[in-house]
Amino acid sequence: MTVPAPMQIPPDLDEITAWFDPDEDRLREECGVFGIVGNGEAAVLTALGLHALQHRGQEGCGIVTFDGALFHHERHMGLVGDHFTGPDLMTRLPGKHAIGHVRYATQGGTIMRNVQPLFADLSGGGIGVAHNGNLTNARKLREQLVEDGAIFQSTSDTEVILHLIARSRAPRMMDRFVEALHQIEGAYALVALTNKTLIGVRDPLGIRPLVLGDLNGCPVLASETCALDMIGATFVREIGHGEVVICSEDGVESLKPFVDQPSRPCVFEFVYFSRPDSIVGGKSVYDVRKRMGIRLAQETQIEADVVVPVPDSGVPAALGYTEASGIPYELGIIRNHYVGRTFIEPTQLIRTLGVRRKHSANRGVLYGKRVVLVDDSIVRGTTSRKIVQMVRDAGAREVHLRSASPAIQWPDFYGIDMPDRDQLIAGQMSVLDMTKILGVDSLGFLSVDGLYWALGEEKRDPHMPRYSDHLFTGDYPTRLIDLDRAQSDKDHQLSFLVDA
Amino acid sequence: MTVPAPMQIPPDLDEITAWFDPDEDRLREECGVFGIVGNGEAAVLTALGLHALQHRGQEGCGIVTFDGALFHHERHMGLVGDHFTGPDLMTRLPGKHAIGHVRYATQGGTIMRNVQPLFADLSGGGIGVAHNGNLTNARKLREQLVEDGAIFQSTSDTEVILHLIARSRAPRMMDRFVEALHQIEGAYALVALTNKTLIGVRDPLGIRPLVLGDLNGCPVLASETCALDMIGATFVREIGHGEVVICSEDGVESLKPFVDQPSRPCVFEFVYFSRPDSIVGGKSVYDVRKRMGIRLAQETQIEADVVVPVPDSGVPAALGYTEASGIPYELGIIRNHYVGRTFIEPTQLIRTLGVRRKHSANRGVLYGKRVVLVDDSIVRGTTSRKIVQMVRDAGAREVHLRSASPAIQWPDFYGIDMPDRDQLIAGQMSVLDMTKILGVDSLGFLSVDGLYWALGEEKRDPHMPRYSDHLFTGDYPTRLIDLDRAQSDKDHQLSFLVDA
Amino acid sequence: MTVPAPMQIPPDLDEITAWFDPDEDRLREECGVFGIVGNGEAAVLTALGLHALQHRGQEGCGIVTFDGALFHHERHMGLVGDHFTGPDLMTRLPGKHAIGHVRYATQGGTIMRNVQPLFADLSGGGIGVAHNGNLTNARKLREQLVEDGAIFQSTSDTEVILHLIARSRAPRMMDRFVEALHQIEGAYALVALTNKTLIGVRDPLGIRPLVLGDLNGCPVLASETCALDMIGATFVREIGHGEVVICSEDGVESLKPFVDQPSRPCVFEFVYFSRPDSIVGGKSVYDVRKRMGIRLAQETQIEADVVVPVPDSGVPAALGYTEASGIPYELGIIRNHYVGRTFIEPTQLIRTLGVRRKHSANRGVLYGKRVVLVDDSIVRGTTSRKIVQMVRDAGAREVHLRSASPAIQWPDFYGIDMPDRDQLIAGQMSVLDMTKILGVDSLGFLSVDGLYWALGEEKRDPHMPRYSDHLFTGDYPTRLIDLDRAQSDKDHQLSFLVDA
Amino acid sequence: MTVPAPMQIPPDLDEITAWFDPDEDRLREECGVFGIVGNGEAAVLTALGLHALQHRGQEGCGIVTFDGALFHHERHMGLVGDHFTGPDLMTRLPGKHAIGHVRYATQGGTIMRNVQPLFADLSGGGIGVAHNGNLTNARKLREQLVEDGAIFQSTSDTEVILHLIARSRAPRMMDRFVEALHQIEGAYALVALTNKTLIGVRDPLGIRPLVLGDLNGCPVLASETCALDMIGATFVREIGHGEVVICSEDGVESLKPFVDQPSRPCVFEFVYFSRPDSIVGGKSVYDVRKRMGIRLAQETQIEADVVVPVPDSGVPAALGYTEASGIPYELGIIRNHYVGRTFIEPTQLIRTLGVRRKHSANRGVLYGKRVVLVDDSIVRGTTSRKIVQMVRDAGAREVHLRSASPAIQWPDFYGIDMPDRDQLIAGQMSVLDMTKILGVDSLGFLSVDGLYWALGEEKRDPHMPRYSDHLFTGDYPTRLIDLDRAQSDKDHQLSFLVDA
Repeated sequence: MTVPAPMQIPPDLDEITAWFDPDEDRLREECGVFGIVGNGEAAVLTALGLHALQHRGQEGCGIVTFDGALFHHERHMGLVGDHFTGPDLMTRLPGKHAIGHVRYATQGGTIMRNVQPLFADLSGGGIGVAHNGNLTNARKLREQLVEDGAIFQSTSDTEVILHLIARSRAPRMMDRFVEALHQIEGAYALVALTNKTLIGVRDPLGIRPLVLGDLNGCPVLASETCALDMIGATFVREIGHGEVVICSEDGVESLKPFVDQPSRPCVFEFVYFSRPDSIVGGKSVYDVRKRMGIRLAQETQIEADVVVPVPDSGVPAALGYTEASGIPYELGIIRNHYVGRTFIEPTQLIRTLGVRRKHSANRGVLYGKRVVLVDDSIVRGTTSRKIVQMVRDAGAREVHLRSASPAIQWPDFYGIDMPDRDQLIAGQMSVLDMTKILGVDSLGFLSVDGLYWALGEEKRDPHMPRYSDHLFTGDYPTRLIDLDRAQSDKDHQLSFLVDA
Repeated sequence: MTVPAPMQIPPDLDEITAWFDPDEDRLREECGVFGIVGNGEAAVLTALGLHALQHRGQEGCGIVTFDGALFHHERHMGLVGDHFTGPDLMTRLPGKHAIGHVRYATQGGTIMRNVQPLFADLSGGGIGVAHNGNLTNARKLREQLVEDGAIFQSTSDTEVILHLIARSRAPRMMDRFVEALHQIEGAYALVALTNKTLIGVRDPLGIRPLVLGDLNGCPVLASETCALDMIGATFVREIGHGEVVICSEDGVESLKPFVDQPSRPCVFEFVYFSRPDSIVGGKSVYDVRKRMGIRLAQETQIEADVVVPVPDSGVPAALGYTEASGIPYELGIIRNHYVGRTFIEPTQLIRTLGVRRKHSANRGVLYGKRVVLVDDSIVRGTTSRKIVQMVRDAGAREVHLRSASPAIQWPDFYGIDMPDRDQLIAGQMSVLDMTKILGVDSLGFLSVDGLYWALGEEKRDPHMPRYSDHLFTGDYPTRLIDLDRAQSDKDHQLSFLVDA
Repeated sequence: MTVPAPMQIPPDLDEITAWFDPDEDRLREECGVFGIVGNGEAAVLTALGLHALQHRGQEGCGIVTFDGALFHHERHMGLVGDHFTGPDLMTRLPGKHAIGHVRYATQGGTIMRNVQPLFADLSGGGIGVAHNGNLTNARKLREQLVEDGAIFQSTSDTEVILHLIARSRAPRMMDRFVEALHQIEGAYALVALTNKTLIGVRDPLGIRPLVLGDLNGCPVLASETCALDMIGATFVREIGHGEVVICSEDGVESLKPFVDQPSRPCVFEFVYFSRPDSIVGGKSVYDVRKRMGIRLAQETQIEADVVVPVPDSGVPAALGYTEASGIPYELGIIRNHYVGRTFIEPTQLIRTLGVRRKHSANRGVLYGKRVVLVDDSIVRGTTSRKIVQMVRDAGAREVHLRSASPAIQWPDFYGIDMPDRDQLIAGQMSVLDMTKILGVDSLGFLSVDGLYWALGEEKRDPHMPRYSDHLFTGDYPTRLIDLDRAQSDKDHQLSFLVDA
Repeated sequence: MTVPAPMQIPPDLDEITAWFDPDEDRLREECGVFGIVGNGEAAVLTALGLHALQHRGQEGCGIVTFDGALFHHERHMGLVGDHFTGPDLMTRLPGKHAIGHVRYATQGGTIMRNVQPLFADLSGGGIGVAHNGNLTNARKLREQLVEDGAIFQSTSDTEVILHLIARSRAPRMMDRFVEALHQIEGAYALVALTNKTLIGVRDPLGIRPLVLGDLNGCPVLASETCALDMIGATFVREIGHGEVVICSEDGVESLKPFVDQPSRPCVFEFVYFSRPDSIVGGKSVYDVRKRMGIRLAQETQIEADVVVPVPDSGVPAALGYTEASGIPYELGIIRNHYVGRTFIEPTQLIRTLGVRRKHSANRGVLYGKRVVLVDDSIVRGTTSRKIVQMVRDAGAREVHLRSASPAIQWPDFYGIDMPDRDQLIAGQMSVLDMTKILGVDSLGFLSVDGLYWALGEEKRDPHMPRYSDHLFTGDYPTRLIDLDRAQSDKDHQLSFLVDA
């Protein structure tokens, strides 16, 4: 790895300030999944479960149900709470079995056809599939399938899986399903609904999360435990890495179709994706984040008057920082809850006020103070820069920025929506340069070993790391088959379709 | 054919009056298609062409364009004039090549996924297809394709054709296209757009219509000549039965891939579907309809004071009737142009006023008169019954109902949306019974031979009829492969999907 | 009256072709009113009545009901059939008494606050008012009222009447109402609903129409008899000029608060506004229009092959023309029923095709023919010009344009929405010049005496004309108080408000 | 004051759980106002200012601007960020002078006509008025005005003020304005825009807040300082109680038209309404709330393991509680940010999960713990009850509920939207009973003296209290003229109008 050239900071203030949404400079999980079998209010519970997973994707949502005879399917752009509601929900989506999905838009525009779950009538019966993750050989498989006469309706990896199942000559649906799994590579947590069972799958390394719950005897699958809490289900266990579970009203059966290897779940679930009230890998996410803050305080000590979180994701780490440092915790930045769906910029003026529309400085707390500003992570740095400026404008004497995760230097290929490497500030320049660019008095990141400490390890074992931590280390857990084929990207953008 | 039992008339007035929309009791064409190649405003011209074909389908519309590099696709529920407008149309749908489609909803709900043109990225490149008609072996083909691993996204016949093309192993797109055509049976007028050419196809009997036009050297395809008139294109010729035309900027090439046989175009294009200003089979539709009225007057003479058309489709025949009978033509029924999209019935009261909301009796013309009421056809009879009642309420002394087409007794399987046979009044009872049920003083239908006379024939040749006239004769021009499989209908309704 | 200068025809084809909507060049009635008292489905019947009056105004509609205790009020932009429907209509608008209104937008933008009926809670109780017509002293009254502290919420004349009622010191509502009537001048047909009665008023000259009907003992008021027909009510009589009727469940009481003078109803109700199936002034509108066509044929004889109406308003006169001339009537122009709400012009190209989107030439009927084209009237001439061109493009050998009404040369001040005088083609140039500009072989207008003949008079009596015919004669039936104050127009445009 | 009977707790769980929205059981400020004069982007700045005040009202928003010649006005239902955006904002609302308003719906349905600012064209010119507060003699004034012929279009107090101005005979607008002010009683913070000036008024006791800012020489008025911060304006001073300021491009002029008396601003601005980053009465709201938590800890000491705020309004007091008690602060309740606009209950099931949709228990923090739950206030207790249950379900061993404000026992008549007294839990029962009903181990309220201490006073002076604190004390600062007239309430609901 060579020393990168300094990041080109746009000299034009205009452009910088256009990056105004404080939530725009976050990594994004592409999806959340949910499934339940055998409950008379399956669609309602799925809607609630998806609502609890809404932080994993807000652009689209869908539910497939099976009522014993027919499948029912609805997909929408927007929030679960805007669509899957109303007294007619069970009429629209009848049945005791359901799966659901929330998703982010991928770049290239949000397209209804990409909203999941996908559904297909196969010769063996219907199947709905919802997927969180990203295949690293999807493009290659897709090309082979198209060559072979398959017609794709979406650009999603999930449809690749559907076609692999459709073309399998295996006699039973489960065999066809497993046959398809053996052909795909990458990260995936899948839920699928057939006319017999609810299937859950987690990739061989367990990169993407999936948990099993129980609601009065009905098996439930979800990306996070907070979805179980929402519907009052009890947490049973995590789906294992490389495990396939087949859920029916008769119970849960488990397959292990892959050669076993150590798991490597994505560490960013702890850093940002999962909700603080979820339990991931047996650990309270909130607790891990507080420990990240504790270790951060130890690693990046500084004299200061107040610890201020960037709301809301920096709050647990800031509490940990306070606990370890003894520096008082204060709400120095206030979040505005009523932002509205679309605040289109009317003028240049408003653009320069950008970040203030979601966040406001609490002047009384900041004025004249030495401030430790704690965020969960720093991506492009564009929002950090604006928040720092806002804090300074409110009279802060010193601003010390602390990232509760290590420096993000490498891209992801497993389903995280993030900028290219040349947009990652820590991938482009030294801490010293960043300190200048961001306008802070000091800048500190949690170390990778510190992150492992927060997770209960002594430190990272470079020979067998317990987590997928490539964002910080560049150590990718799988082959990246499509990556070399990246230049052919454009060929797949042959059409742009709008259904409205 | 046995004598049918008398139709069961619902004794409950409520139910009868619920059939209130005078246009609800018409046969419906399922589609109109349009295509143009080599024009810098292809999307705009396609929108206009579809607008001229809007009478062939009002529930959905779509356009696919190709700009030399990419395909662009938009589909909408509703009218062309509500969607394919605005100064950004060419930006949304750039390119010099385009095809478009308007359609009716089939029963079972309007589903966005069924709106055409369909589009697929095949291994040989993208292809868009729009289809007017109905395949008689679509279900069988579909089952084979699904068995073979194909995933269907719609329930339309058109997607069957797409899959057949996708799976062909022929080297060139045109060969694959023709290979697909050889597998399908039924009625179809297709337009397809590839990255090279615009293709037009008409089924071996030429059941569904398709014409070729020319706009300053650019080939144009359309269901009817009125679409050519709309954009100022000149009419070149009809596509022949069983002909495939390949249109490009270099001109039009013609293939005849089928064994030749006499054509049998659908006679109902003359009776109701085509616009009166279209030229079909070299004949002015308006002129044929007037001749139907002339012959009708000759065949069903009666003493009367006024000839009154049921607007608007009965107007040309009524003018013919007047010409032949000498009985004055009067506007005895007025059509209300401002009906609004949805006039949901608030109460029982309004339901009994049903038909008046689109039509009003012109009392001054009807009061005390012996009225010959001329309609283009009678389907279930429900609307006729209400109009007759309205005319009587306005004081008509006698009401003599005349249908400018023969009695509709048989269902269609070639793309006409119509009730089942047990709903067809003339399929269920004698003219005498109908006279009573409809509440008229006399009832007359044009004879089948009279219809052929209006079309310029001496009479129908039973050994080689010139037209598809099965609605009146039960003489179906093709095999009906799927028909025996009808009981498996329900199996194909495995899912009901809503994308919104 | 001096000879006007020739109208300036825009030299730019672009601008001309922008005047494409064939219905854009018509005069527009500003309103229709309806009222009913004592019926348990008052709102439903009012919705139906307004639906029958929809041709009098399509931009906005409203209903006020009184349920014995409370008033209920709904106003909407758009068609009756899009809003006043649904099973909850009687729940939304309960009560046995109702009034309703349909209206056109006035120039200056459609504003919800101008949609009627207006409603106010006065000290004597609530009152709803709906108004068809225009006051000629509204501006003056308004200024006095504002000076006196009144706050206006709309720009409509109707609110002036409301304020006059509100400020009257008379003890009883009816006295206050009459006191208000004595202050206003101009043309008006009013319906008002108080907590006691339904009131109907027609201006002293009876310029605007209002009829009384009866539905099973319930009094009904409506602008035209077609609204009575719609709900099955019987026609009782026209409200007299200068008459006030007070309708309650106990019957109908009549007041004559004005000095009597001969009536002068607006003749344009016969020419264009009223529906052909309405009876106005005891005459069938359809019949009068046919007679206009008969006389037109006599006055403007020409050798020709076909008589072609401009649909739909030219149809009755064309039938009369055929009857008198013996020249065959043919549907040479076809109307497209599926125009859609908004067909926004994407390009210059489509603009040149303008008129074709609503009308199409029926080439078979026109080709090689000498055509008499019959329209009800000619306003700016812009649409006529385009239709003539369309007919010529379809191959007509000669085009002879005939207007079934006399030349429109003067503006209206009584509630008709029409262009300024300098936009009226017949107000700007000679028939010879018009013939050239419109591109016709000959041009003919019905004479004013001919119009009176069609109405059953011998001819117009210049000393005491029976109708308000100022559009043709410039002979205004009332004082025009506000007219001299026109320059102060702009002062009243102090604000532009949008409620959305 | 007699001892109230115990509150009737609905025995039916169904009903209880229907009170599910944790934000539904809060008091609501009815409005926020903003104004600016002399800035070329007045509408944009007003939109931003209103956005900062959005917490004061989310149901409707409006802006009036004056461009030197015309007034412009827009009002909408919903959030500022959904409507007052887009590149055309300055085109829609041009001018250098603007006022704006955000509001809550009052009970009885949100009606567009009540959205402010109101606007009227008076004889002296146009005037726009926006109002935060409530008049205590509005009903009486309204009746007099209606008696005198005034027509009201809304049910808002603000229109009363407009009519008083309209009817004043004083020569100058400012004199008319002051004349109107002398007739009204109650609480009000007004901004008004004439064609000359921006006017700001605060009621004689200064119950509702209004501050003056400066943006590069342009005077700015706003309900809170956070709106000044949003647009980068500097805080100048609060408008005094009973002060009228007249702002123009020439500067700010001050009038004191009322007899002076001590001010009594509403103490609930500190408790809940104002944003924590605002400065009210020279005090940081955040700071006061922390002090309320400190004193609360001192007054209601308990042994516990964690202090948990009810997010987000309980956070500052919880931080103060932690500071004073030494008990660790933890995020035991997580707020879901993606609730969607409307989550309509499909079934009984989901209703029982109600509160979880906005809040989730963070089990890891709560399990086995003795929890001090800190909220800003307790109104009906319905949400508290559900949150307590949620915390218990998460395994809390003990739950000690603490209200950072005194017990709310009395209704408000000055513009706060709150339940009737019989719905206020503390107005209906003893602390002991509440403890049982709410299901907590202990319950504590801040004392009234404690509240004054947090505000920097020693304690409340009962002879001259510094704040309007009637919610806690029943000591109303003004006459309540309309209150005795309450039974005539219904008379004013004479009509229910919908404009859509």
